Amino acid sequence: MIRGINCNIAANAVIADSIELGDNVTIGYNCVIEHNVTLGDNVIIECGTVVRENTLIGNDTRIGANCIIGEHFMDYYNGINTQYCLNIGKNALIRSGTIIYGASDIGDNFQTGHHAVIREHSKIGNHVSVGTMTDIQGTCEIGDYVRFHSNVFVAPNSKVDSYVWIFPHVTITNDPTPPSKDMRGVSIKSYAVIAAGALLLPGIVIEEDSLIAAGAVVTKDVEQFSVVAGNPAKKIADIREVKNKVTGESAYPWRYHFDRAMPWEGIGFDRWMKESGDSI
Amino acid sequence: MIRGINCNIAANAVIADSIELGDNVTIGYNCVIEHNVTLGDNVIIECGTVVRENTLIGNDTRIGANCIIGEHFMDYYNGINTQYCLNIGKNALIRSGTIIYGASDIGDNFQTGHHAVIREHSKIGNHVSVGTMTDIQGTCEIGDYVRFHSNVFVAPNSKVDSYVWIFPHVTITNDPTPPSKDMRGVSIKSYAVIAAGALLLPGIVIEEDSLIAAGAVVTKDVEQFSVVAGNPAKKIADIREVKNKVTGESAYPWRYHFDRAMPWEGIGFDRWMKESGDSI
Amino acid sequence: MIRGINCNIAANAVIADSIELGDNVTIGYNCVIEHNVTLGDNVIIECGTVVRENTLIGNDTRIGANCIIGEHFMDYYNGINTQYCLNIGKNALIRSGTIIYGASDIGDNFQTGHHAVIREHSKIGNHVSVGTMTDIQGTCEIGDYVRFHSNVFVAPNSKVDSYVWIFPHVTITNDPTPPSKDMRGVSIKSYAVIAAGALLLPGIVIEEDSLIAAGAVVTKDVEQFSVVAGNPAKKIADIREVKNKVTGESAYPWRYHFDRAMPWEGIGFDRWMKESGDSI
Repeated sequence: MIRGINCNIAANAVIADSIELGDNVTIGYNCVIEHNVTLGDNVIIECGTVVRENTLIGNDTRIGANCIIGEHFMDYYNGINTQYCLNIGKNALIRSGTIIYGASDIGDNFQTGHHAVIREHSKIGNHVSVGTMTDIQGTCEIGDYVRFHSNVFVAPNSKVDSYVWIFPHVTITNDPTPPSKDMRGVSIKSYAVIAAGALLLPGIVIEEDSLIAAGAVVTKDVEQFSVVAGNPAKKIADIREVKNKVTGESAYPWRYHFDRAMPWEGIGFDRWMKESGDSI
Repeated sequence: MIRGINCNIAANAVIADSIELGDNVTIGYNCVIEHNVTLGDNVIIECGTVVRENTLIGNDTRIGANCIIGEHFMDYYNGINTQYCLNIGKNALIRSGTIIYGASDIGDNFQTGHHAVIREHSKIGNHVSVGTMTDIQGTCEIGDYVRFHSNVFVAPNSKVDSYVWIFPHVTITNDPTPPSKDMRGVSIKSYAVIAAGALLLPGIVIEEDSLIAAGAVVTKDVEQFSVVAGNPAKKIADIREVKNKVTGESAYPWRYHFDRAMPWEGIGFDRWMKESGDSI
Repeated sequence: MIRGINCNIAANAVIADSIELGDNVTIGYNCVIEHNVTLGDNVIIECGTVVRENTLIGNDTRIGANCIIGEHFMDYYNGINTQYCLNIGKNALIRSGTIIYGASDIGDNFQTGHHAVIREHSKIGNHVSVGTMTDIQGTCEIGDYVRFHSNVFVAPNSKVDSYVWIFPHVTITNDPTPPSKDMRGVSIKSYAVIAAGALLLPGIVIEEDSLIAAGAVVTKDVEQFSVVAGNPAKKIADIREVKNKVTGESAYPWRYHFDRAMPWEGIGFDRWMKESGDSI
């Protein structure tokens, strides 16, 4: 074992010889840390958590109790000796009960709620949050600053661009004629908002700055600036007409009206865009 | 440690010196009990459960395996030394996999299903049941004899009065123009019934003795005695006209037709009201 | 303890004397195995899992970390000494975080996702899969080759015949006038498909070869070959007219178009029926 200074490892934790720890690492009671695990500086792992082989965790990341990080997938149980690696970036907060499979890449400042499940072969950007009991099924591509709230289901092959909000109990599907082998993932573009309980049918494209109303069952593509609602969902408004009911002011596109924890916090979207040289 | 008579603590449990145990307390294998925890008489904590600091648990409460009771919140990870306390009353049954945060007050005769999550700063009355995988997001006020069935989502700032039934996969929201900082909790009045899969939009008020039909998407306030259904929900009946399909008898207001585990069990609602001097 | 050859038991696992192990059994760190448990040959139990008393697990079954197998039910906490037994067949793959109660019978080749919950007194056939966070409430009858995807709710007294597909976030209810004591389970016949987010009302019968569209709220019985959609659900097509959008070919009844992991894989449904002498 290679270990930095000031590490605090519980006496009854089970730790493989081949792990590498930075400075100030804390490992709680009843943890199991398997071989070829690397933990950065200031990493905290709370009690009862298992970190599987070939996992790399960045500095300042904190992992709650009873998590499984780098979970086995089917190959393991079939006796196939794969060398899949899970990378989790810096400054993550992974809450208790979360299960993350091997063979995914997760950026910096990641967060999960409790009992979240993230399957294999997913690519997740920076500043992404995955809520309590949300189930990301693997082989998904997720941009930066995406927030999945509680209990969202994301089918394999979904693609979610940056700055997207997905609220509780949203279901994102992928099979147009279930059961079949013909999977067609949903694509959600930047700045879209999917409100609670909405259901997105396979293969649809949700364009930028659109709003899927709570409980909408979306059966076809949604254009930019559209608000759709109902079952099946129909366009009910242009998003630029939607007002905040309390203040009476325009509420959308939200990127001009909301900035908490966004890269344009305190300076506004336009100035941030200009300064960052980024493009939508 | 202060401990009563006949306690049964597993040899490998990790127990802080500062805890206080009543009589006949059982603590299972692999448990971790942190400092300033007080457990009443006859408390049972099954294996692998963590009880965080400053938790107070009443007599006769039983906690299943792999729970986290008094879970840390963000402050903890940010190094802020708060002294939040979780109180759980007498005679609770907290089933395995449940996570309850610190800084909530929970009454007597509480129950949870499995993998339930209850966040911080909630006030929960007596005889409340929170089903499997239900997610109560914190800062909620919940009365007595409320039953949340499986997999209900309850947004922050929701208010649920006493004698309310909330069935599986109900979603209770709080943000009228997501994403925003303008949260408006739903209010559900006594004796209301929210059937499976219903979705309640932010800020609406569900009046007493109403019935939200299964799958309804409720976008505006619901009056007393109303039955609403559909997406968006519309009034389809007066609840006093709804019959039990088998017996042909009136089924609502349910408080006159159902009494299992209610305080009027065996004596009827009217007599109980009269005797208890309570008012609706 | 009776144990076969080549068993590999973690030093800190807690194991009752009365258990019986086949050959090549592996028991991970921090496991608790209670009395009267029998594990077949090649069984693997990963770390932190609890196997309760009177559980019988068949050969080649693999159980992930942090599961509870043979969970106590209310009787236990009330001090009643029941002798309920859980039987799990051969070659199961029970993924981490799953909770299965005592007093159920589960066939061979069973699978679960993560955090699944299966309550007591259920009868589950062979080749059944129960997805991540799916909640089967007990006293259900489930045939062979049934697939519950993620986060499905199945009320007590439901009956699901063989070769049925139930996709994510489906809710199956059982109380026509909630709250009541008059439970009426849903019945789903063979070869039916319940797409994502659908909601089935109490007591309805879903006939063979029907398709419940995503998000449908089904309030009455569904006939063979029907496709129903909407809230409330209405018949929108005959299933035999539904085409695969990519290939333009018929997609249903799916048993003629899909065979992965089905007993007719590679030979076609008709030939399999003829050879097996089975009847629909």
